[in-house]
Amino acid sequence: SAAAQRESLDRAAQALAPLAGGNELIVTHGNGPQIGLLAQAQSGTRSRGRSAGGSGLADLRLDELGAETVGLIGYLLEQALARRAVRAATLLTQVVVDPADPAFADPSKPIGPVYGEAEAEALAAARGWEVRPDGAGWRRVVPSPAPLRILEITAIRALLDAGLAVICAGGGGMPVVETGGGGYLGVEAVIDKDATSALLAGELGADALLLLTDVDAVYEGWGTQEAKPIREAAVSTLLGRSFAAGSMAPKVAAACAFVAATGRHAAIGAMEDAAALLSGETGTRILPDRSLSG
Amino acid sequence: SAAAQRESLDRAAQALAPLAGGNELIVTHGNGPQIGLLAQAQSGTRSRGRSAGGSGLADLRLDELGAETVGLIGYLLEQALARRAVRAATLLTQVVVDPADPAFADPSKPIGPVYGEAEAEALAAARGWEVRPDGAGWRRVVPSPAPLRILEITAIRALLDAGLAVICAGGGGMPVVETGGGGYLGVEAVIDKDATSALLAGELGADALLLLTDVDAVYEGWGTQEAKPIREAAVSTLLGRSFAAGSMAPKVAAACAFVAATGRHAAIGAMEDAAALLSGETGTRILPDRSLSG
Repeated sequence: SAAAQRESLDRAAQALAPLAGGNELIVTHGNGPQIGLLAQAQSGTRSRGRSAGGSGLADLRLDELGAETVGLIGYLLEQALARRAVRAATLLTQVVVDPADPAFADPSKPIGPVYGEAEAEALAAARGWEVRPDGAGWRRVVPSPAPLRILEITAIRALLDAGLAVICAGGGGMPVVETGGGGYLGVEAVIDKDATSALLAGELGADALLLLTDVDAVYEGWGTQEAKPIREAAVSTLLGRSFAAGSMAPKVAAACAFVAATGRHAAIGAMEDAAALLSGETGTRILPDRSLSG
Repeated sequence: SAAAQRESLDRAAQALAPLAGGNELIVTHGNGPQIGLLAQAQSGTRSRGRSAGGSGLADLRLDELGAETVGLIGYLLEQALARRAVRAATLLTQVVVDPADPAFADPSKPIGPVYGEAEAEALAAARGWEVRPDGAGWRRVVPSPAPLRILEITAIRALLDAGLAVICAGGGGMPVVETGGGGYLGVEAVIDKDATSALLAGELGADALLLLTDVDAVYEGWGTQEAKPIREAAVSTLLGRSFAAGSMAPKVAAACAFVAATGRHAAIGAMEDAAALLSGETGTRILPDRSLSG
């Protein structure tokens, strides 16, 4: 519900506000539930619209729905931060992807609600969706190409220099492809938010990348009786292991990408521990190979 | 339709791009049709949600729906400007209003679709809406308080200084009230986009305010056989006349407010004439009283 979204962003702001003191704070966020709701409302509107004269919501692309969600989430987060004396600005962010990215031929990122098989197949036929089994049900899947370049880096830098916290690259940013002549065109895809955050942190020269989630650390043996939190690990150690696809795996991959590219550190842990994660008191800290081996 | 929105913003970008050469360009825009569609989709989702387990779209406030629309519109306009070599950034914009503004007790701004009387009354009862007759039908009306202060002025200035065109204050900005301690809370209202644009232009020290619409000038005797375009007028002359409520009247009021407050000039005319409006070749130019009387 909208009330739950407001509360959730308020809790996020509570955890993030202490980071803004003395640091340049750049906040990214996901948008999975919100984009799913909009896509759902859109299909509902379209089916009604067929008898009622049509609706402009019906044929928005995923990148356009994404832009709507980041407007909403950024706005609520900005207000929640302001309540804690953190002045933030929300910037729309376009992220360049490669039209030849293999993800376009193999949509794999689930979005929106879980359907029964018959309903999923009917929606796929009616809307041109790709659907796949997901747990006990079926879901729509969309391409998730790799982020290559963030178009708004100059703008983000300017806002940070003005002393503002910056909310940007929400939902992984809007995926666009270059069209020549300096132009860009949005594409029907969703970019992994962790991958975009790692790219953004690298391009901005960030001192640290924090990946905040609902578990307190990365675990060895997750889901087993021997589950044990990893307090500190080098990139090469983590890259040799496997983690839960769609949840911990992309966070570990993003942390490793940032650390390997910059020689700085990343941390993964619980949202409410944000400040303790930055100082290294809790969560999983990911370090360059040389830091531990040398 | 979405295609129509993309085309319309592409035409806007074509008209605006020439202004960016040698000028700092700040673009605001309306969101009436888009916020109406979202509100409509939301009520549809809610009525379905009652049997299907509810939906988070159902209870978003107007300021939150507004944030969604400015995400979408800003994104499409940014891309359309980039196709014409204008680099723009889109910033969410909160605008402070007075909780004691009389508009809250007298909602008068129509939004969303036109309904029949019975349907309008049913929606009013079900959703707590205020509805009023509008032409041959009925529409929802919402409060439209006066804009007092733009929270993102520092951010807008920083983006302009970085050499970017800035898309902001879309839909008149999200209306918020001060809650004490530096906090703000969004309210169920819509701010007049022309009034916000005049305030913004004044706070930024803009050289000129252009109000772009679908007629080529302000007319004397609009709708009569003696209709005649006004080429140039002083503030006090225009303030003594009456213009079409909800279309030309707020534009004339905004132009006069900006010119009276700053001593600079405003112009009202057709979107496609934007560059000619700035140079004074066409449209209606509004000047300070002293310019014409002195």
